Amino acid sequence: MSSAAPTGFARLFNPRGIAVVGASGDPQRIGGQPVGILRDTGYRGAIYPVNPKYGEINGLRCYPDVMSVPQPCDLALIAVNATLVPQVLADCGKAGIAHAVVFSAGFRETGEDGARLESQIKAAARNHGVRFIGPNCIGVMNLKERVYCGFGPGFANADLKSGPVAFVSQSGGFAFSVVALADFEGISFNYIVSTGNEADISTLDLIADFLERDDVEVVVTYIEGITDGRRLREIGRRALEIGKPILVWKVGNSDIGRAAAESHTASMTASYTLYRTAFNEGGFIEIDDVHDLVDAARAFMSRRLPRGPNVAVITTSGGSGVMIADACDRHGLRMPRLAPATISAIERVAPKYSTLSNPVDLTAQISANSRDFNHIVGLMLADPNVDQLIIRYGGVQGKKGEEWANSLATITDATDKPVLVAWSRVPDPNEASMQLLEKKRIPWLLTPTRAANAAGALYAFSRKRAAHLARARREFTRTLAPQALDFLQQPRILSEHQSKRRLAQYGIPVAREVVMSLAEIERMSAAPLPFPVAVKIDSPDIPHKTEAGAVRLNVGDLNALKAAARQVVGSALDTKPGARVNGVLISEMAQGVEAIVGAVDDRFFGPVVMFGLGGIHAEIFKDVSYRFAPFDLAIAHEMIREIRAHPLLTGHRGKPALALDALAMTLSRVSLLIADHAGRIAEIDINPLFINDKSVSAADALIVLKAAPAS
Amino acid sequence: MSSAAPTGFARLFNPRGIAVVGASGDPQRIGGQPVGILRDTGYRGAIYPVNPKYGEINGLRCYPDVMSVPQPCDLALIAVNATLVPQVLADCGKAGIAHAVVFSAGFRETGEDGARLESQIKAAARNHGVRFIGPNCIGVMNLKERVYCGFGPGFANADLKSGPVAFVSQSGGFAFSVVALADFEGISFNYIVSTGNEADISTLDLIADFLERDDVEVVVTYIEGITDGRRLREIGRRALEIGKPILVWKVGNSDIGRAAAESHTASMTASYTLYRTAFNEGGFIEIDDVHDLVDAARAFMSRRLPRGPNVAVITTSGGSGVMIADACDRHGLRMPRLAPATISAIERVAPKYSTLSNPVDLTAQISANSRDFNHIVGLMLADPNVDQLIIRYGGVQGKKGEEWANSLATITDATDKPVLVAWSRVPDPNEASMQLLEKKRIPWLLTPTRAANAAGALYAFSRKRAAHLARARREFTRTLAPQALDFLQQPRILSEHQSKRRLAQYGIPVAREVVMSLAEIERMSAAPLPFPVAVKIDSPDIPHKTEAGAVRLNVGDLNALKAAARQVVGSALDTKPGARVNGVLISEMAQGVEAIVGAVDDRFFGPVVMFGLGGIHAEIFKDVSYRFAPFDLAIAHEMIREIRAHPLLTGHRGKPALALDALAMTLSRVSLLIADHAGRIAEIDINPLFINDKSVSAADALIVLKAAPAS
Repeated sequence: MSSAAPTGFARLFNPRGIAVVGASGDPQRIGGQPVGILRDTGYRGAIYPVNPKYGEINGLRCYPDVMSVPQPCDLALIAVNATLVPQVLADCGKAGIAHAVVFSAGFRETGEDGARLESQIKAAARNHGVRFIGPNCIGVMNLKERVYCGFGPGFANADLKSGPVAFVSQSGGFAFSVVALADFEGISFNYIVSTGNEADISTLDLIADFLERDDVEVVVTYIEGITDGRRLREIGRRALEIGKPILVWKVGNSDIGRAAAESHTASMTASYTLYRTAFNEGGFIEIDDVHDLVDAARAFMSRRLPRGPNVAVITTSGGSGVMIADACDRHGLRMPRLAPATISAIERVAPKYSTLSNPVDLTAQISANSRDFNHIVGLMLADPNVDQLIIRYGGVQGKKGEEWANSLATITDATDKPVLVAWSRVPDPNEASMQLLEKKRIPWLLTPTRAANAAGALYAFSRKRAAHLARARREFTRTLAPQALDFLQQPRILSEHQSKRRLAQYGIPVAREVVMSLAEIERMSAAPLPFPVAVKIDSPDIPHKTEAGAVRLNVGDLNALKAAARQVVGSALDTKPGARVNGVLISEMAQGVEAIVGAVDDRFFGPVVMFGLGGIHAEIFKDVSYRFAPFDLAIAHEMIREIRAHPLLTGHRGKPALALDALAMTLSRVSLLIADHAGRIAEIDINPLFINDKSVSAADALIVLKAAPAS
Repeated sequence: MSSAAPTGFARLFNPRGIAVVGASGDPQRIGGQPVGILRDTGYRGAIYPVNPKYGEINGLRCYPDVMSVPQPCDLALIAVNATLVPQVLADCGKAGIAHAVVFSAGFRETGEDGARLESQIKAAARNHGVRFIGPNCIGVMNLKERVYCGFGPGFANADLKSGPVAFVSQSGGFAFSVVALADFEGISFNYIVSTGNEADISTLDLIADFLERDDVEVVVTYIEGITDGRRLREIGRRALEIGKPILVWKVGNSDIGRAAAESHTASMTASYTLYRTAFNEGGFIEIDDVHDLVDAARAFMSRRLPRGPNVAVITTSGGSGVMIADACDRHGLRMPRLAPATISAIERVAPKYSTLSNPVDLTAQISANSRDFNHIVGLMLADPNVDQLIIRYGGVQGKKGEEWANSLATITDATDKPVLVAWSRVPDPNEASMQLLEKKRIPWLLTPTRAANAAGALYAFSRKRAAHLARARREFTRTLAPQALDFLQQPRILSEHQSKRRLAQYGIPVAREVVMSLAEIERMSAAPLPFPVAVKIDSPDIPHKTEAGAVRLNVGDLNALKAAARQVVGSALDTKPGARVNGVLISEMAQGVEAIVGAVDDRFFGPVVMFGLGGIHAEIFKDVSYRFAPFDLAIAHEMIREIRAHPLLTGHRGKPALALDALAMTLSRVSLLIADHAGRIAEIDINPLFINDKSVSAADALIVLKAAPAS
């Protein structure tokens, strides 16, 4: 299913009739709640309790089974014992009820028996044409149409407002407390889904669907783990394409958090590094608490994106300007000087002792004069050096606040630059003004730092969107045509020489080398390569050559070469008796800065390439960058620029700049190699890759294959 | 003045009478506000308007000058033109008014003339025995006694509650919006001070005073910059000693933020690195937004500190457990397994499908059963593996919430371990329960992540406090007695050899070396040290020898040595004709891992030592640690452990562990050297210091002196 197409859940969220299967008169039971909740919260369609034990529930006629429910009925809420769910889903299909929400627990989350039962409900639903949410979820809400399909305190709150945000959550109970807090801070939702075990409809299905809805401007998702990383990336691209952000609250990222998540959802999760790679690439904005959610949602609801990183700040208090500057710095935003013409125009009206650098501090002197304040706002918005504006206007309150907000709305109407208001008052005394800003989609944020964070989110999305659209306009340029590689006769771990041959076939520079038998070397009267050389064992059974004592570096003459060859064979066979030995590898000693290039075919996300410098950089400082494969030179250069050690590559302390074009070409070709042969290659490890001022050269390499496909 | 003693501001905050100098009938003027504000917000003492132009203001008799104001009058609020302030302060002294708050602006913040005026008001106050806050501040509040001495909207809010928190702020306007937001979230203050230009009473004076007050349990401070780093450190130690935290909101830490702060306060600020070193060492908890302030204040108001890093979590929703685990990881907290006895006891009452690892997830099944839930809370609190407990109890609301909270209070009374409640409901429906928790000093936090952050703050303070008390119990052990050093005859920059001799006098191992003239070297028939050697110029005028081409490393024989000596002298004199040359330095080539040790006598914080590994570690990754000098071996070992590259020192990848005791000794002795001679030494730079498995050795060093004291 493509994320570009709505997934056809219209009737799931807007059902003409709802069957409540396992309905009960006892509100302590899960099945005892949905009928009352639907009625009390304003559902306008027909409600059909289903339970063979009752004739009537909550004053409604109760049906013995779903087949006897009148049509149209588009949705079944299922709260029966887990073992009965397969039959109920089959019955739904027979009765023409195309969607279900399964509250029942006792499936995969409880162990093997439960997992078997979960397979059964999947099969039953598939065989009978039913799509369902859950099991083990707490429900689905369409707040706009007042369809509250669920149980528990979250569904008892009939006062929740609706708004153009959708929330897809892998946590049920917690999601509704987030909703309550966000609603309290002024962010409301049109759709909320607790996805439970996701046996059928997944978090990603729902995000893809919500992205395409006109009544959703921002999608929020709380994720503990997903299994289809490729689809996540596809959805991220779609979000950029249509300019609709996905606020993603990913938990379980630390070791202890991940362990807790796996014990909670009973599913293995990919490493956070790959999630982050996908989030950075696509239309995602990471959040990690409710205030982040509120601030980012409000900022995006302005429907404005900055064209660049430049932020201007106007305040009546120097302190908040300082704070905003610190936060802008964290988000990679810039605070440039204003244009000279802007400064002189401001000077004409600004109070004495104002600071006219950016942040502009007009001091408390201007508090009573919102007309001059807004005049300066207009001047700053017109400045070509300004991509977005953060306002903190300390003194204004009550009626005066309303006048000011009204006038601000007129000014912002005349521009398409984002304008963010840091309004540190508690809501009450300024409620009318704040509502006015909300109506005009001018975001207000409770503190200066939160305003800067919101500006950072807008810029991040805008930057990624521009890059995505630019990429979409040009063809993806392969840096090499696909090459056929022969893997069939190979063992699963290729020897160094075998690995390097495959790299060379993909145009990746490798050190010059030969493989010879020990006997050939003993007979040798002249070296095959200029000294010094490296001497190593070449064996598919000894991937860790150094640890096996099977490497000699900087070998300087013929006698030393012969001795080294004897030693590495001896050590290798001592370490691993019976190892298959292809011969002794003699290779030139490459020079330069040591880098590491790795690639794996991740089972969740597919092929991905990693780049970093050698030694401690990758291992201890984790100073590495990742991109999904395949990619072109532009992305490869991004990867190179992204590591913190980047200054070491560009002519650090008078050293020559390194051959970064050759490096980028190598990264791109590694990405093609793993992407073209992802069916066979599990892992590529080039360590080290030497980079000098003229070229790059793979000095050691290892390719690990997947188990050979059954022929 | 010692921070350990209250600074005698009792009457400043609790005056028997207040003179308002520059009082006016026009509320648009600053002087037109304080009289009305004092009366309307409940001040119970006498109010004396002072203005020769009026006979009566706001129905109160108006006095022509402060000398005619009746006694007792303990405080003058001064809102006159800046040029009149020196006279008014002098008059206050004559009239026996010991304290003043100066609202007037037009001093240092406006340029040189203002700075001169500021010197005059300092002198006038000192000469007449008056202590004052400001100038250019917005006021002082004692909320407990309803003494609102200030102007602007912050002082118009008579509804602010009082509570055991004090707030000292270098931002005026912003501070009161922070207060309003915090008050709204349930954190109230007994004292609030806007410090303005701090011409007399400083932020640090006030923090020191508030720390000693019984009605202050938590001190909050908003800082753009302070000038007395030593006093900051002293106050940090006092906070640990008495177990009272200082929540510090330091802004202006990024480059653009710092520039904004300097343009705002017109004062140079120390580097954030040194602030952070002081904050990490003392009883400070860094915060960076209002919710941090609220959460940390509430956590510390529990008056409980954890004994160790171990956190247990009990939830009814797996998702919040995952989130808390992630946040605990960020704060260095641990989430150990519970004791087997605890787990079996929980098992007896926990619902089916509960997760009994830590986080304990009892599932929504237990929502209705707060008795069992609290029974398990008690079991977990009794577990010896648990230092503090985070509770998230999702389902409880209203009356049931109150019952639960009451029972929780009884359980927590039986332990001294911190208990934090993550209560994600918006305040309204649980107001009674939340107030109950507040009354019992059980902190509640709005989200799981915020609860974990609060637990992190408690642990950080507790850990630092324990370390401080342990240090206070033992004598500070000098690793060397003070050594007399001869600097008088030296130039300001010592040559490498001269620098190393001073290091050697402080017991710091230096490479073996000799300094010889070029002529001596030419005549030489045997080398003074075993080859290979390093050959360098020794000159006080060429501190950057490598850049001057005046270094040859790995010189292997006598001829090469003579050639190298000629080359370094030639290059040095080419680069800097006329440089004073002491001779040619011949030194052994040290081996090992390269480190950098630096020390400076910072003008704000005093002597401080920096440690990091050489090359890019310090420069690009900023992987360095700092401690104020002098320090002992225990602190030196902390510095060594603190760098991220620490694994490189302890036997990384089968390499031998390095001589870390010798390294710690060197760090401690560098700290003694700079501390003992801070009057003369501006800067010490040892780069590189080689560390191998047996010893350390300074291979290059530079000492820069301060301008010689006038004799």
